[in-house]
Amino acid sequence: MTSADRWLLPDGIEEVLPPQARRIEQLRRRLLDLLDNWGYDFVIPPALEYLDSLLTGVGRDLDLRTFKVTDQLSGRMMGLSADTTPQVARIDAHSLAPEGTNRMAYCRTVFHAKAGSLLASRTPTQIGAEMYGEAGESADVEIISLMLAMMEAAGMKDVHLDLGNVSVFRALADKAGLSSAQQTELFGLLKLKCATDLEAWAAREIAQPELQEAFILLTRLQGDRKLLDDCIRRLAQLVPETSAELAHIQQVADRLQARFPAIPMYFDLTELRGYNYHTGLVFAAYVPGYGDAIAQGGRYDETGAVFGRARPATGFSADLKVLARFGAFATEGKQTIVAPDVDDPALWAEISALRSAGKRVLVATEQDTVSADLYLKKHDDQWTLVEA
Amino acid sequence: MTSADRWLLPDGIEEVLPPQARRIEQLRRRLLDLLDNWGYDFVIPPALEYLDSLLTGVGRDLDLRTFKVTDQLSGRMMGLSADTTPQVARIDAHSLAPEGTNRMAYCRTVFHAKAGSLLASRTPTQIGAEMYGEAGESADVEIISLMLAMMEAAGMKDVHLDLGNVSVFRALADKAGLSSAQQTELFGLLKLKCATDLEAWAAREIAQPELQEAFILLTRLQGDRKLLDDCIRRLAQLVPETSAELAHIQQVADRLQARFPAIPMYFDLTELRGYNYHTGLVFAAYVPGYGDAIAQGGRYDETGAVFGRARPATGFSADLKVLARFGAFATEGKQTIVAPDVDDPALWAEISALRSAGKRVLVATEQDTVSADLYLKKHDDQWTLVEA
Repeated sequence: MTSADRWLLPDGIEEVLPPQARRIEQLRRRLLDLLDNWGYDFVIPPALEYLDSLLTGVGRDLDLRTFKVTDQLSGRMMGLSADTTPQVARIDAHSLAPEGTNRMAYCRTVFHAKAGSLLASRTPTQIGAEMYGEAGESADVEIISLMLAMMEAAGMKDVHLDLGNVSVFRALADKAGLSSAQQTELFGLLKLKCATDLEAWAAREIAQPELQEAFILLTRLQGDRKLLDDCIRRLAQLVPETSAELAHIQQVADRLQARFPAIPMYFDLTELRGYNYHTGLVFAAYVPGYGDAIAQGGRYDETGAVFGRARPATGFSADLKVLARFGAFATEGKQTIVAPDVDDPALWAEISALRSAGKRVLVATEQDTVSADLYLKKHDDQWTLVEA
Repeated sequence: MTSADRWLLPDGIEEVLPPQARRIEQLRRRLLDLLDNWGYDFVIPPALEYLDSLLTGVGRDLDLRTFKVTDQLSGRMMGLSADTTPQVARIDAHSLAPEGTNRMAYCRTVFHAKAGSLLASRTPTQIGAEMYGEAGESADVEIISLMLAMMEAAGMKDVHLDLGNVSVFRALADKAGLSSAQQTELFGLLKLKCATDLEAWAAREIAQPELQEAFILLTRLQGDRKLLDDCIRRLAQLVPETSAELAHIQQVADRLQARFPAIPMYFDLTELRGYNYHTGLVFAAYVPGYGDAIAQGGRYDETGAVFGRARPATGFSADLKVLARFGAFATEGKQTIVAPDVDDPALWAEISALRSAGKRVLVATEQDTVSADLYLKKHDDQWTLVEA
């Protein structure tokens, strides 16, 4: 290997250099402050855990995306965290107040053995929030509002919101008595989003005519509020069991629209991609120019059960580095004051005072070629700031 | 595995929960601001890299401490970063301005397959600074001053500074013509810090009487400035080749003592532990109550050579989580305002305005048991803040 090859980074793994790193750090602080201002407490889950803890209750996708290493101390398998949510569920189940609502926020690197999509990083900086203990629609409204507020704080323009519910399709599949092989086949077709294939499949595999119609209705349910309302009316007649979940989407959408009248909302009950452990209402924010969801989340009630405490839960996350790339916010810069490298106690005192006051003072050593905004120079035995 | 076992974390791996996580985040910001105010640019090196890049030029200790995984995309081995410095050396060699001085700062999780010591975490949050391009003593003085300023900013009390130089011992070993097996044996003995074993070893293995005396002198060189000066005088007679490096320690110590008169300085030329790629002056900060160095660093000129660009370099790092534990600084809290979960546009507007002004407002849903400092309540048709 030559020296020229040594600096090549693996695909999907990136480093961030000065002007962009400063921008990311500023956005990180702004967004963590936002989460704190909404009452979400910062937590730092471990980056590495025993695989048994890390992958319990999550889907196969996440398992395949998790890097595994052997723990030299215990001989057990450990995994690098690929998603913060299941870890926060464990923290809620074990380490925090056992009653009431817990709100938690986080921001840290997660690791993907395979990227989630062609666009995605394999080491995203996952920033997000989770709310435990509240099953009602208020929790959904709060967490989606928080996601939209975060998009605004990150300077995201023309955001639109997608709402779905993974449990509606699953309820239909159960009612139709689909075998596990049939469900896998169905979910595979849903991921491909080809309506004609789905309709042909439903016509072939589903015996009951009203369920067949319900499946076809749902696969067409990708659109605006009017389409949602129309489909829901018909679905309630065909499969009354879905009414409660569908009404829930409508109510959440109403409350959100009142708060965020400018944000367009779309409904898609076939969207299951990227939801690994979700059980109910799911949602995603999109912006023009980025093909994936820029932030997404949903309900995952019961995930804590494997840790001994089942709790209603909902949350969302985004990749901070992606937000910094697409958000229209100004990076704040600082003037650089350049001081000479002279051993003078008065100069050192002046430099220290400037730095303590939040100024950026660089002591130029022999090799420095930095460009200064201001200089510290000696005038009449006094160290003073001089324009460059 | 029962649910009770699922939340056990591997040894040396920890999670951080709300009050402490807030404290760590506040210290993180304070210290990154300090680094920025000294002119150090924030960078985010990749958490994962090809092993060839990651381990080139570093010592065997670091290799053994690095978690390795296979890259599914390329089939090549990757390593989790166990130390940020070699990565920043690569960034300096390839990605930044090729001339002059580069100053970089970082703060991120690194991973150790085996902990560095009994006290250390296997996932420390490494915060540090590196300076490239300046071979002169000014760079050593600046980087050590910055480390001491960071200790002060973290509220560290009774810090003392250890100075050493790994090249002095290596120069003696070369001059004595020690074989590689002998050097390994010697460095093993040095790590154990047993003076009598070392003296017996030197008497047995080293033929030249003046080198034998020099070795014994150096192993005794663990103490204050007077001891340093006395030993150096004698060493200069015995082995004149060491004079320049030893004078360098004296000069750096003089300049530092002028800036930090209250900080005691100790000298130890046998301290090689924890220095994986260092080539010259090394240093460490200690505080009472913590058995390891709380921050440490040193010169590692030439590390960039394997990336095609050898540059003088010096830097230091610390574990942010340890600093937050031992530093005496106050964590800033925020009052929590609790608002009711009512769909009222006037309430939503009030909550949004408070949050935008930096206030912490929690909307209490049905399950909430949070304790409020203030409440948002309706009085005469106006939402107002009321004491709890």
